[in-house]
Amino acid sequence: MSGPGQGSEEVLVTRVREVGGQTVTERSPDAVVVEEPMSIRLDGTLVSTTMRTPGHDFELAAGFCFTEGLLGGMPVTDVGYCTDLGVRDDSSVVTVDTDGRAPAPSPRLGNVSSSCGWCGSELLDDLCAWLEPLVGSVPIDLDVLRGVPAEVASGQQLFEATGAAHGAAAFDDQGRVLLLREDVGRHNAVDKVIGRLLLDDQLPASQAGLFVSGRASVEMVQKAWAGGFGTLLAVSAPTALAVRTAERAGMVLAGFVRGDGFNVYTGPPPGDRSPSL
Amino acid sequence: MSGPGQGSEEVLVTRVREVGGQTVTERSPDAVVVEEPMSIRLDGTLVSTTMRTPGHDFELAAGFCFTEGLLGGMPVTDVGYCTDLGVRDDSSVVTVDTDGRAPAPSPRLGNVSSSCGWCGSELLDDLCAWLEPLVGSVPIDLDVLRGVPAEVASGQQLFEATGAAHGAAAFDDQGRVLLLREDVGRHNAVDKVIGRLLLDDQLPASQAGLFVSGRASVEMVQKAWAGGFGTLLAVSAPTALAVRTAERAGMVLAGFVRGDGFNVYTGPPPGDRSPSL
Repeated sequence: MSGPGQGSEEVLVTRVREVGGQTVTERSPDAVVVEEPMSIRLDGTLVSTTMRTPGHDFELAAGFCFTEGLLGGMPVTDVGYCTDLGVRDDSSVVTVDTDGRAPAPSPRLGNVSSSCGWCGSELLDDLCAWLEPLVGSVPIDLDVLRGVPAEVASGQQLFEATGAAHGAAAFDDQGRVLLLREDVGRHNAVDKVIGRLLLDDQLPASQAGLFVSGRASVEMVQKAWAGGFGTLLAVSAPTALAVRTAERAGMVLAGFVRGDGFNVYTGPPPGDRSPSL
Repeated sequence: MSGPGQGSEEVLVTRVREVGGQTVTERSPDAVVVEEPMSIRLDGTLVSTTMRTPGHDFELAAGFCFTEGLLGGMPVTDVGYCTDLGVRDDSSVVTVDTDGRAPAPSPRLGNVSSSCGWCGSELLDDLCAWLEPLVGSVPIDLDVLRGVPAEVASGQQLFEATGAAHGAAAFDDQGRVLLLREDVGRHNAVDKVIGRLLLDDQLPASQAGLFVSGRASVEMVQKAWAGGFGTLLAVSAPTALAVRTAERAGMVLAGFVRGDGFNVYTGPPPGDRSPSL
């Protein structure tokens, strides 16, 4: 269950590399991690919806209830998928039972942790339904993307000092950093960038790209989409759902930046941009 | 505001290094990132509590409301700290106003994202109040810790395939991996490990250590504490709150594992373990 089989899926990726001063691109399959919502119920009451990689779902549900202190010292008497809720994906809801002996879960109104607007949708299809393709957002030229991580890194003072802060940045069509924010939470760093643009009345950021220092999970794509960015550049890899969502949004999603290049996971079609590819 | 000044604080750390076949330790100050809770209110209603690094709080609050679609297209008319709630830390609650024109926030009961049991406490002091020191948990010998990341890495199939999966593992007093789980979410990977131990009736894991592939934020310490682990080993750096919490729990917190060594942030006191140091 923890092998790459269930937890990953293949997508087609354009690998952009610098070889002997030339930009070389190659289109080939790549494995990306699967990210899907799962709801956890304790004695029938919804206590959490988390974006997780399928596999070991019962352990996740039981472990969550235990480590969050929801069991109140009571033993787990049963763990199973809910099959009676009429949802299409039976593995998307797991119930943990203590025969009603765990304390009644307290409502956690408004506690969405570091900000997943996607959690709460119990059906994967619902997640994308409301997301309309971007209109008027200009993708950043691929040739420009390579230099962005180094530009951002030179301003990441908190990361430099602590080794443990995420960075997010808006950058222009020449790869220049317009705005950089750091935070212990990667969602927070992105929210700080987009919040600044909002307060400065500079949204949608149709001409800019968004850089994130970690992975591109689906919430990062959603936040980039909300800000009107036509390009999302992640230092690390995207998830399968992030790729699907960026595709639907019509956003360029690039990631896995290494010394010699990076990968492009979604649009624009290579044919449209052959001069820069 | 984004400089290391406000966002980081100094802790004393024991640096353990391998120099010419000898284990050398040195005690010196190190900067760790600050992590503190902040609540966000929209037109007076609590919509989120997030663990964040202080600084640019208004941007974070406005950006969160915007990117999560809570503003409903309405402009932000004011952002400020709430000073009338009687909380001791005035900067822990930020309110975003639209003069009531944003849609009334929907209750997000039970949506705690990838699992922060700490969010929701508006006062930092409350966070630690309930956490009692571990009893009977045996710290893993420091000499053993160095080898654990390589042991775990050899089993991280999903990370190997996708470059985007977190790993968590329980390991024994010889550094052998007892149980490894991977997930797109780092909290989930830990919950899967502890959930397995729970379902196998092997908690508290007093004789084992817990490894996490990323940073040690406060929730990781809390989950390790819930599982009864006396040692938490993180590949990357801990946050300031994680250090404070591990200290209170009486847990060995080690991190920042690099080729030649690692850092020990909390206990046991070097004097107690001079043979292995």
